[in-house]
Amino acid sequence: MNAFFEKLERAVMANRSRLCIGLDPRMEKLPSPFRHATSPLFAFNKAIINATAPYACAYKPNLAFYIAHGLEGIAALKKTIKYIPPEIPIIADAKWGDIGSTAEVYASAIFEEFKCDAVTLNPLLGEDSVAPFLKYSRRGLYILCLTSNSGSANFQLPHDLYLRIAEKVSRWNRAGNCGLVVGATLPDYVKKIRTRVPDLPFLIPGIGAQGGELKKIIPAARDSKGGGFIISVSRGITECGEGENFADNVRKAAREFRDAINKGGGLFKSHIRRLAGTRK
Amino acid sequence: MNAFFEKLERAVMANRSRLCIGLDPRMEKLPSPFRHATSPLFAFNKAIINATAPYACAYKPNLAFYIAHGLEGIAALKKTIKYIPPEIPIIADAKWGDIGSTAEVYASAIFEEFKCDAVTLNPLLGEDSVAPFLKYSRRGLYILCLTSNSGSANFQLPHDLYLRIAEKVSRWNRAGNCGLVVGATLPDYVKKIRTRVPDLPFLIPGIGAQGGELKKIIPAARDSKGGGFIISVSRGITECGEGENFADNVRKAAREFRDAINKGGGLFKSHIRRLAGTRK
Repeated sequence: MNAFFEKLERAVMANRSRLCIGLDPRMEKLPSPFRHATSPLFAFNKAIINATAPYACAYKPNLAFYIAHGLEGIAALKKTIKYIPPEIPIIADAKWGDIGSTAEVYASAIFEEFKCDAVTLNPLLGEDSVAPFLKYSRRGLYILCLTSNSGSANFQLPHDLYLRIAEKVSRWNRAGNCGLVVGATLPDYVKKIRTRVPDLPFLIPGIGAQGGELKKIIPAARDSKGGGFIISVSRGITECGEGENFADNVRKAAREFRDAINKGGGLFKSHIRRLAGTRK
Repeated sequence: MNAFFEKLERAVMANRSRLCIGLDPRMEKLPSPFRHATSPLFAFNKAIINATAPYACAYKPNLAFYIAHGLEGIAALKKTIKYIPPEIPIIADAKWGDIGSTAEVYASAIFEEFKCDAVTLNPLLGEDSVAPFLKYSRRGLYILCLTSNSGSANFQLPHDLYLRIAEKVSRWNRAGNCGLVVGATLPDYVKKIRTRVPDLPFLIPGIGAQGGELKKIIPAARDSKGGGFIISVSRGITECGEGENFADNVRKAAREFRDAINKGGGLFKSHIRRLAGTRK
């Protein structure tokens, strides 16, 4: 197991959690105390991290929400990355894909300038667009395979592109630093992916706001040891807090998601054994 | 014709140019006077713009080269955007693709925060990932169709994905704000794309450093009126200046690329008529 996936596994075990929390702050949705802070996005993220760190196995800031605010956004992202407890890995949700010489620049940006542990990538431009990231053998790459949105039907499903991506990534994975992004909204297809690539780790968005169901996606996604996946939730946790009880509501949502994932199966052997009889 | 493509056409006619200049500054390659400037990336871009503005129909900053330098990079990008003469359109080379709710944030970032005229997008996530950009009917969207790198053979060519992308974009193009990115390195495939979508404008990278040839790509790419494309050159212009003659070398390279594109056919009817007898 490479350094990133080891760090992730340690966080999974320490917090008994396969919950990855998306840090995607929307300025217009911030509760008013944060909107008036000096650095609103960072103040909000800080409160989310304080409330949820015991329940998260990873944090995943989507770069869109920071780039959208220019200099202020990038400053908030850097402060957020520094603030996340060092034992919890950070996955930069960038979905980048560019020609090799530009991909080199993006790889150094995410791993050296921003010091993230892992990144999401778009594979449409093929191997040379991923190669500069693959060279970082101690970091993690989650490559888009089957996304959770309706548009995945346009190009990913026809001619089984998603399966061809999964198989290609499995060949690119010589350093053991690759995983796949697979959407919680399409459990039947995720099952096919798991059959083709029994050992690749999955990052699974699409639960909550997007309508994916834990009890369908977990049996489809887990590997032969009952693990091999993390579930990402963003709005379902970060946008449920309001007023005085903000921190409590967010904390409760994170704890409940974590526990629901564990009950959905796949985290700990004791869980699996106990649940085996009651779950289809 | 929508507002962006009209602006582009005006710049094409004013400068008699289909040359789009990529502003992709590499810190380690900057001539030393710029490396020691207060804002090295902006100082370099400013010199490039001063030398080349009479020969460019558009500028195309690739965001990677700015994001890689964090706050300093984003500040340089904003200054560069402000510095570009207002009559020359700016295409943000972002290659973004994310689920609809995130794409909305990216669209407002590029068109409102950064005030660019157009953007490049990755279509792998399908229609809802492009929809928030499509709504900006006065801006331009160049969607990756067939890229100039070797990795295009992995997923874009098999099962004619590139042609299916071209046809889908042509259906998304209700506001007339869409174009395609097609690589200069694959003229035979570009010809097939042109046959399928006779009217979509092309943005063509891959000339120069990447090995594409003008005399092959222009006949393949031009539309029935001899236009409908712009050719992007980055390193071939921006990395040819050194020492005292920096500005002169860069200016000369831009002028030569512009003239070579015009001679390659497709810009002005007078040119086309004159060249028709001598070109295969």
